[in-house]
Amino acid sequence: MSPRPGLGLVATQHAVVATPEHPLRLTDGGVLRHVEVAFETYGELAAARDNVVLVAHALTGDAHAAGHHGDPARRGWWDNLIGPGRPIDTDRFFVVCPNLLGGCRGTTGPSSVDPATGRPHGPDFPELHVADLVAVHRRLLDHLGIGAVHAGVGGSLGGMQLLQWLADEPGRLQRAVLVAATARLTAENIGFSSVAREAITADPDFHGGRYAEHGVVPARGLKVARMMAHITYVSAQGLEEKYGRDGIEGYLQHQGEAFVRRFDANSYLVLTRLLDRFDPFADPAFAAAVASGDPRVLAISFDSDWRFGTAHSRFVVDELAAAGQEVAHHELASPWGHDSFLLRPPGYHELVADFLRS
Amino acid sequence: MSPRPGLGLVATQHAVVATPEHPLRLTDGGVLRHVEVAFETYGELAAARDNVVLVAHALTGDAHAAGHHGDPARRGWWDNLIGPGRPIDTDRFFVVCPNLLGGCRGTTGPSSVDPATGRPHGPDFPELHVADLVAVHRRLLDHLGIGAVHAGVGGSLGGMQLLQWLADEPGRLQRAVLVAATARLTAENIGFSSVAREAITADPDFHGGRYAEHGVVPARGLKVARMMAHITYVSAQGLEEKYGRDGIEGYLQHQGEAFVRRFDANSYLVLTRLLDRFDPFADPAFAAAVASGDPRVLAISFDSDWRFGTAHSRFVVDELAAAGQEVAHHELASPWGHDSFLLRPPGYHELVADFLRS
Repeated sequence: MSPRPGLGLVATQHAVVATPEHPLRLTDGGVLRHVEVAFETYGELAAARDNVVLVAHALTGDAHAAGHHGDPARRGWWDNLIGPGRPIDTDRFFVVCPNLLGGCRGTTGPSSVDPATGRPHGPDFPELHVADLVAVHRRLLDHLGIGAVHAGVGGSLGGMQLLQWLADEPGRLQRAVLVAATARLTAENIGFSSVAREAITADPDFHGGRYAEHGVVPARGLKVARMMAHITYVSAQGLEEKYGRDGIEGYLQHQGEAFVRRFDANSYLVLTRLLDRFDPFADPAFAAAVASGDPRVLAISFDSDWRFGTAHSRFVVDELAAAGQEVAHHELASPWGHDSFLLRPPGYHELVADFLRS
Repeated sequence: MSPRPGLGLVATQHAVVATPEHPLRLTDGGVLRHVEVAFETYGELAAARDNVVLVAHALTGDAHAAGHHGDPARRGWWDNLIGPGRPIDTDRFFVVCPNLLGGCRGTTGPSSVDPATGRPHGPDFPELHVADLVAVHRRLLDHLGIGAVHAGVGGSLGGMQLLQWLADEPGRLQRAVLVAATARLTAENIGFSSVAREAITADPDFHGGRYAEHGVVPARGLKVARMMAHITYVSAQGLEEKYGRDGIEGYLQHQGEAFVRRFDANSYLVLTRLLDRFDPFADPAFAAAVASGDPRVLAISFDSDWRFGTAHSRFVVDELAAAGQEVAHHELASPWGHDSFLLRPPGYHELVADFLRS
């Protein structure tokens, strides 16, 4: 059953972290009385419980970060980074990768059944903040008996969650690697998000978010949303070299159609809205809280990333520096745009490996 | 009736340039047996007919380039550039601005009635090339008794048309100003086009392009297409400064809704497809033909234009230089992205004015 010797992956696991007796109170005042989290782990937890690495996934990722479940073609999204002898070395670390609250890949989200009504939350799923995503994962670590975490590693929205961790529970994450992350989306970022949401909600099959009860999904809108978003994940050069003028249309069609099969439209709305709202340094107490935990922070950005590029990482670093915190920032050359965090541009994996050993 | 003293605008005019006896044979083999062109003129044609400036509009522009037709709030799209004492000086030049074949603003296009069937061409409108757009405007100038043209001035697709003019009738355009133009879209450009087309054709109200017969328009898809395209017309900095994180969503909604009221979906499909196909320098004879006409060419690009930026202009200039033609190229600083060609970044209007006087 072990898909790779030494990886230590068994199967995707599930844990209940909120119940009617111990509900999850959300930042905006909403309450969730049942929250289940899907997660995977790799490697072995040390007896001293001091070798934990938390992997935080991006907008449309999931708990399946490494290895495979029987089909070697379906390896985890960060399989190149996690494993025996890899930068997140499962010979040494116990890696936990949980799926996000609000998503649709095993953790409670809009497509989950609301126990109060017996039907999917759908559009009634409460609005979330990044802090709510983090709250669920903090409960998961509590549930697993894990206190301090050696390091958190995340790309894009994954990095944003780790930043929030640092302020919400100073000291618990001893190190954080924020890859292609941001602390504040630009108007352009939000513009693309809003077009994606328009495509989804204007689809006649959206039915105000109650599409599940109509036995349909807003496939047309979700496909358009993903096709557009995908362009923003790749650099112009990357699109040219990989697909070219003749191949790009078919490639985007394929991307859009594959996405519709695996992702829920209401989840996409909830998660993009929380991305758009994220602006933690607007409160000066945020940077001060992070600094009080004295974490080691490594920010990595990629020069061709026009979604959350170097200016975004620099903003995070400058804000933390202003609070007296030392943060390392590396801009790496990579032709692949925002998606570089999933690939292996020169120097990237070495930076992560060295930092985790520090 | 004169909206501005000296502008010489009377009203939008119309001319028939193809008839069953004198049909328009298209590049791809299609035939149009009735083509009408909407155009405006400004200034006075000199007795020697040697003071003509042809203004070529962009993808969603129209013949109404300057002045107004009674409502001062509805000035032409290049009103800042055209008029008495302006860079395209109507005290000196006779300016002709015709609407595009395939469009929907007065010149024959998919929404025009096909005389052969008595119903709109709709999706049966033939596929076009830039050369077909130019062929119609060449016929218009013939019709107006205009031979040589002092200068053509166009931005974006307008500039692309002028480039085609230079090869299709070498010598007729004595000067060309290509602003924020391209001779070859990138994979990224085509990617955005293809998402826009997907949004339109997937709208259930599209009805395979026969929406007019159903009494509807694919408004949802066309709105999404325009919202997305609009982001690509403006720089990230421009969006930040003009609208900001809080204003961008409402602004894009407004842009999308206004566009649906004035533009036809089938026209958008035909025109974006011809943009995507344009690649004239793939044929070495093209550059040689342009050079044989020995035109003076001025290319202008804007540093924040991430649609048809400086690399696009440089490609045109390099191709023409390789054919022995001298071309001036200026990259101007402007924070407004591709839309800069409609605005007035420092130095831009002066370059155009000087070049037209040369």
